[in-house]
Amino acid sequence: MSYMSALFTSARYHTKPRDPTYRVLTNERINKHVLEAQYAVRGAIPLRAEELREQLEENGADAGLPFDSVVSCNIGNPQQLDQKPLTFLRQIAALTEYPDLLNHPSTAQIFPQDAIDRARSLLQEIGSVGAYSHSMGVPAIRKRVAKFIEERDGHPSSPSQIYLTAGASNGVSNLLQILISGPLDGVLIPIPQYPLYTAALALNAARSVPYFLDESADWGLDVADLKKNLAKARHDGTNVKAMVVINPGNPTGNCLTKQNMEDIIRLCYEEGLVLMADEVYQDNVYHEAQPFVSFKKALREMGAPYADNVELVSFHSISKGQTGECGRRGGYFELCNFHPEAEEQVYKLASVQLCPPLAGQIAVDVLVSPPKEGDESYALWKEEKEGIAQRLKGRSEILVEAFRQLEGVTCNDANGAMYLFPTITLPKKAVSAAADAHQAPDAFYALKLLEATGICVVPGSGFGQQPGTWHFRTTFLAPGTEDYVRRLKKFHEDFMDEYRD
Amino acid sequence: MSYMSALFTSARYHTKPRDPTYRVLTNERINKHVLEAQYAVRGAIPLRAEELREQLEENGADAGLPFDSVVSCNIGNPQQLDQKPLTFLRQIAALTEYPDLLNHPSTAQIFPQDAIDRARSLLQEIGSVGAYSHSMGVPAIRKRVAKFIEERDGHPSSPSQIYLTAGASNGVSNLLQILISGPLDGVLIPIPQYPLYTAALALNAARSVPYFLDESADWGLDVADLKKNLAKARHDGTNVKAMVVINPGNPTGNCLTKQNMEDIIRLCYEEGLVLMADEVYQDNVYHEAQPFVSFKKALREMGAPYADNVELVSFHSISKGQTGECGRRGGYFELCNFHPEAEEQVYKLASVQLCPPLAGQIAVDVLVSPPKEGDESYALWKEEKEGIAQRLKGRSEILVEAFRQLEGVTCNDANGAMYLFPTITLPKKAVSAAADAHQAPDAFYALKLLEATGICVVPGSGFGQQPGTWHFRTTFLAPGTEDYVRRLKKFHEDFMDEYRD
Repeated sequence: MSYMSALFTSARYHTKPRDPTYRVLTNERINKHVLEAQYAVRGAIPLRAEELREQLEENGADAGLPFDSVVSCNIGNPQQLDQKPLTFLRQIAALTEYPDLLNHPSTAQIFPQDAIDRARSLLQEIGSVGAYSHSMGVPAIRKRVAKFIEERDGHPSSPSQIYLTAGASNGVSNLLQILISGPLDGVLIPIPQYPLYTAALALNAARSVPYFLDESADWGLDVADLKKNLAKARHDGTNVKAMVVINPGNPTGNCLTKQNMEDIIRLCYEEGLVLMADEVYQDNVYHEAQPFVSFKKALREMGAPYADNVELVSFHSISKGQTGECGRRGGYFELCNFHPEAEEQVYKLASVQLCPPLAGQIAVDVLVSPPKEGDESYALWKEEKEGIAQRLKGRSEILVEAFRQLEGVTCNDANGAMYLFPTITLPKKAVSAAADAHQAPDAFYALKLLEATGICVVPGSGFGQQPGTWHFRTTFLAPGTEDYVRRLKKFHEDFMDEYRD
Repeated sequence: MSYMSALFTSARYHTKPRDPTYRVLTNERINKHVLEAQYAVRGAIPLRAEELREQLEENGADAGLPFDSVVSCNIGNPQQLDQKPLTFLRQIAALTEYPDLLNHPSTAQIFPQDAIDRARSLLQEIGSVGAYSHSMGVPAIRKRVAKFIEERDGHPSSPSQIYLTAGASNGVSNLLQILISGPLDGVLIPIPQYPLYTAALALNAARSVPYFLDESADWGLDVADLKKNLAKARHDGTNVKAMVVINPGNPTGNCLTKQNMEDIIRLCYEEGLVLMADEVYQDNVYHEAQPFVSFKKALREMGAPYADNVELVSFHSISKGQTGECGRRGGYFELCNFHPEAEEQVYKLASVQLCPPLAGQIAVDVLVSPPKEGDESYALWKEEKEGIAQRLKGRSEILVEAFRQLEGVTCNDANGAMYLFPTITLPKKAVSAAADAHQAPDAFYALKLLEATGICVVPGSGFGQQPGTWHFRTTFLAPGTEDYVRRLKKFHEDFMDEYRD
């Protein structure tokens, strides 16, 4: 029943009742930008994985499934798998949650002194973790974020430019909402990309302007190709206003070269683009030859006219790195060279949302201000952090090696982040079977992989890829890498046997 | 510099550099819907209060201010003032944050057994509070929310219709984003209203269709007037798709009568409107004669054709009631009679945002499933909860009484919520002085009040009011009610002496 006929009915309701089955909210009347948004990381395949997990939980071996566990490699959710939280962070969290503990005679036996001291000083700064804070986040925590950035980059940072967030996604959404002022506005996004960006752009009714990362050059960026795409988009009437860079890359795991970064900054200056730098994986780097360099540092070191003029916003998060505290929802972004009029709107959007969760803000504090050498908690903190980093690196290497041995599969090294994004060359017969099933070929592969092995990955089509190529994204967070490899290898051989041309 | 000229410059950048001072994000190019959104609760007056607080912190008596403390009555933020958190909730929070505590020999001496048991079972259900949960929230917690609703209303509730949120605001924003599909779409909102609604509607480029609450009828709702406004809005081309009701009211503190609620439900049915019931103050009711009744209960008890057809979404929160845990960001909403197509979009939006903060989800669990009679924590929990409720009621009564003694001020009783919304009759001379200062008359009054006394309230113009009337909203959360009254009384007398016609 259409809106107009509903209106018509309602205008006459005294004589003829409306159709009781009428609903305001059906696809016909729902915001079409919401309908169009897609988010594969929690899409159809992860939902199917959830069903399978429930079947196993309820019926165990009687579920009749060819595997005994679902392995969630679809999402970077370290603590859902076996990653233990950093003890120092959780001690401070517990003490700030229940301040009575600070005065209990047993506390000194349970908690290290530096955790007790930090909890005490945080509570003085915050008051109660149950109170709304400043909409930008607790001022004292923002000061320590600025200090962290200064020490990381060797360039000044001001707390007045730092906004704590409910995770990087929340910050990205807010920035895009401010940026997009009409349906012709567009944003350059890498392909492949983390689908938050296409989803947020769809929700804001904006155009995604893709630029391709070059798999054959370790997922680096071809600036000439980027300029070509930009020119084409503008020719098509798109007001390209910003460029998103994810570094280290998601889903690609690449780290940009300094040359690439400078080219990007120059381009943003020359073309009048806001540079949105998603740097949530800055602590997940695995090769000394390719260290993380922040865009803030690269920008400041380029000098005039770039350093003080390119509008840069960079995002960080407590969900990634060795912290892995996804469930707390925390992070921050820093603005550089923003106009005061823009800052005012960023503040307003933050204030409508009241404040970021305090548990996330406290974790940001620990992220930027961890125990120092000589502190009671330093040794344990260092051991835990390095242990997590080494385990991730080790798993990524085993997986890369295993992928490379599979028929038709190639895979770059992981230099950063927590993902691999192997290419799978699918036989024509498989592509055609996928078409019959109304699925993208890589979704077809990923669904079969899930149903056969319990391994849940996300098809490349959820991230974007060069036309005619197929990929999947897998995290390397899951324990039991040998078991993963064994399941995958068997599945892949069977799949190829079935569909080989 | 306009966008086009920037483009022009950029196309020639090899020969002529761009204007270095050009910024993408200025008011000219920022999303105009963001520019238009207003949120007075954290607007100019609260920002000025923040400055004054900083001055006092830095300089104390040397700040030269005529008061020694800023009293934040602008926002319902109980734990920023003197409200202590509920012990049981915080004990569970601490234990789930730092599970090692559960195995420590001292734990049984520090924590009551029911808190230990609950933390243990929550951790079994959740895994780690540092992991993303299901996007709708932890399934086991949603089951207990459904049970709570069933017991409250005496009607079935299903966890599949319950979404945990990062606070009610987050849920409201998501629902509005799904609902608004074009610039002609509109939503009925009460005047006065909590400005989240006008802000969220502005951000979604939708029309606010006001309906007035009747101050002379205890802020009840005049359905005939509502229908008139609805007809007028439709005549003006607005697609009115939903109606917001805040019950108990914010900023009015009223509780709707059952008659009012049934009229609203009938109207929503007949006119094809989604009913959005903001019920976050359901635990803040002060008169037995006017108890809280949920819209879900009212709807179900009206029978056919209403009960199974009116699309209802009702919001609850951990920030209000006696919980007052604003900083955790938690709450839930329940859908009734939504079409599966709409449910799918609600889920998708939640999934793009990953998950609500786990600390908030745990607090929802305690809210809906508090200690029971016979449990170790029951007596303390009951004492704390009742103490908070009684203190709020007592303070509201003292303030109402004091307001009524001020020249030109009238004030309804607070039946619910945590706010009073007195009318101030401002002399013509004050209205004219306000015009000279380019301020709304009630903003002029509120700013003078702040500068003279340190008391921060929000002018009625931030919530909407009948044209020609002036109000302010104050919480009754602040301790030291006598001191508040003394400061206010002196200010008001001085103000009237200065501006009396």
